[in-house]
Amino acid sequence: LGLPLRVFDPATLEAETPRLANPSELVFREIGCHGVAEAAALAAAGEGGRLVVEKRKSRRATCAVAEAPAILDPERIGRKRGTLALIGMGPGRADWRAPEADRLIAAATDLVGYSLYIDLLGPAAAGKARHDYRLGEEELRVRAALDLAAEGRDVALICSGDAGIYAMGSLLWELIERGGRPDWRRVEVTTVPGISAMQAAASRIGAPLGHDFCAISLSDLMTPWPAIERRIAAAAQGDFVVAFYNPVSQRRRFQLARAREILLAHRPAATPVVLGRNLGRDGETLTVTTLGELTVDMVDMLTLVLVGSSESRALTLGDGTPRVYTPRGYGDKPEAQRA
Amino acid sequence: LGLPLRVFDPATLEAETPRLANPSELVFREIGCHGVAEAAALAAAGEGGRLVVEKRKSRRATCAVAEAPAILDPERIGRKRGTLALIGMGPGRADWRAPEADRLIAAATDLVGYSLYIDLLGPAAAGKARHDYRLGEEELRVRAALDLAAEGRDVALICSGDAGIYAMGSLLWELIERGGRPDWRRVEVTTVPGISAMQAAASRIGAPLGHDFCAISLSDLMTPWPAIERRIAAAAQGDFVVAFYNPVSQRRRFQLARAREILLAHRPAATPVVLGRNLGRDGETLTVTTLGELTVDMVDMLTLVLVGSSESRALTLGDGTPRVYTPRGYGDKPEAQRA
Repeated sequence: LGLPLRVFDPATLEAETPRLANPSELVFREIGCHGVAEAAALAAAGEGGRLVVEKRKSRRATCAVAEAPAILDPERIGRKRGTLALIGMGPGRADWRAPEADRLIAAATDLVGYSLYIDLLGPAAAGKARHDYRLGEEELRVRAALDLAAEGRDVALICSGDAGIYAMGSLLWELIERGGRPDWRRVEVTTVPGISAMQAAASRIGAPLGHDFCAISLSDLMTPWPAIERRIAAAAQGDFVVAFYNPVSQRRRFQLARAREILLAHRPAATPVVLGRNLGRDGETLTVTTLGELTVDMVDMLTLVLVGSSESRALTLGDGTPRVYTPRGYGDKPEAQRA
Repeated sequence: LGLPLRVFDPATLEAETPRLANPSELVFREIGCHGVAEAAALAAAGEGGRLVVEKRKSRRATCAVAEAPAILDPERIGRKRGTLALIGMGPGRADWRAPEADRLIAAATDLVGYSLYIDLLGPAAAGKARHDYRLGEEELRVRAALDLAAEGRDVALICSGDAGIYAMGSLLWELIERGGRPDWRRVEVTTVPGISAMQAAASRIGAPLGHDFCAISLSDLMTPWPAIERRIAAAAQGDFVVAFYNPVSQRRRFQLARAREILLAHRPAATPVVLGRNLGRDGETLTVTTLGELTVDMVDMLTLVLVGSSESRALTLGDGTPRVYTPRGYGDKPEAQRA
């Protein structure tokens, strides 16, 4: 039909009950109004409208048609379906943010996120309704974003890094699946991927992620420590390059030291370690040390810790800057043997 | 001084030998000219110039000063230092490419890469010298890029995905470190990170990378199969979400089947598996299956295979589209206990 989708809330539909041809107690108990298709048709047609085709069912939809006394403006019927753009803004600098993210932020009515991340958007955040949350308020943040979108707003939920890597993505889908809110399930979600901290650190220092790697969060807020330790041991046995996210917090200090011990049992003390802090933001620092020399005091909450595999190599350029990379394979093969 | 850095090749410097105050046989044997600082000063000052400060050394640099008979245009002295921008262009669509990548591509004189990737740049590639290479010519490609940059060109080496993840990054640094070419070491390298295939697939299907994950290449071109198998076993033991890159090739078929077997010994047959093909390009497909149902015939060279952990969940939205996510932690905890 080339017409926009418009939606009504149950209370608006329930107000049409006296005019329904086929009111249903079952529907009322399920969703709070006595009819959906007929009620929506009548609500759209307005007070002077009348039902011309009663409710018909297919396996996946029901349909009814009402006639309005005059031509309708679709933009004034009910409201549109809300959208939620889950945005991975990357580490911070605007020129590492996907243009799709900028487009969806520009189209948003509401920005939801941790205050610092919204601030990092700079001028792109201007003129939007801001819904600021603190660190630790992840679930509140995602619930607020879903509620706003369910009301028909165009919401951008702002994450740093990649929205699907230690960010709001998995919580969003968990709430959509298990939150018990049918209106959340109907929100149109678009996810824009972003540059994660390990990629930012890697691109700055060389190519430490050049061969098989893994990402492990050292936060035991949601995952019991024995499960994390099991992952670290597996990463050590598999000789993966390891990116540690959330390496320490103010009260959480021993985990990184324990991770270092486990890795040291399987790879040399000279294994290069990259510490990236404030990546892609003002005050960015990059330090190269070794697994043997790594101490917890070198690391804070804002640090990404990247530990090389047994094959990773460190070098120093002519101007003194360090570089770290992980070769693609094991040992040297001339080009001819690689084809 | 606020002046640009300009460089000379050894042959140009060697031509100044008759005018040097301190010619050196040692320097000649090392780099092919009898002087660097004095020769460069004289070469810059031109035929009518004369040496006014002889060579002086510090621990990290040598310096000499020559006087020219007239004011010089720095742009006409020697040539500038070449640059190499290592670009991760993401999966293909322009609106997932970092603006920094676009800026460096626009500034480049030469584009080097696999033909398909350069083609995917579309209008951004127009007007540049193109150096197209085929699949398998990775080392030739990177050598060509380094040679061009060493000659003073502004080169963009184009990779798909992230330049540091199964792309040219690690080969570039390997050649810079071990290639035996001092001129390559002096090239100014900038790396722009990009969206890797696993992130593209994840953002399309939900948030399967929402908790600890690893990336494993199943290509045994550079890595012996036992080492790869050891990594898969470790990933299985650690219950990582696994992104398999290079899952199959025309001659390489058994690896994915073996990987599936190893993982099935540690996680349920119902574990969700995401197959992403042509991500972010025309003809993109996304399929959700299970580890039990996965067969090699579902996968080709262009497919990214993402296997969930034992915690990953699949759901179906109201409109029938599948979603997969990995919860942040283990088990359910109410918000209050998480703080």
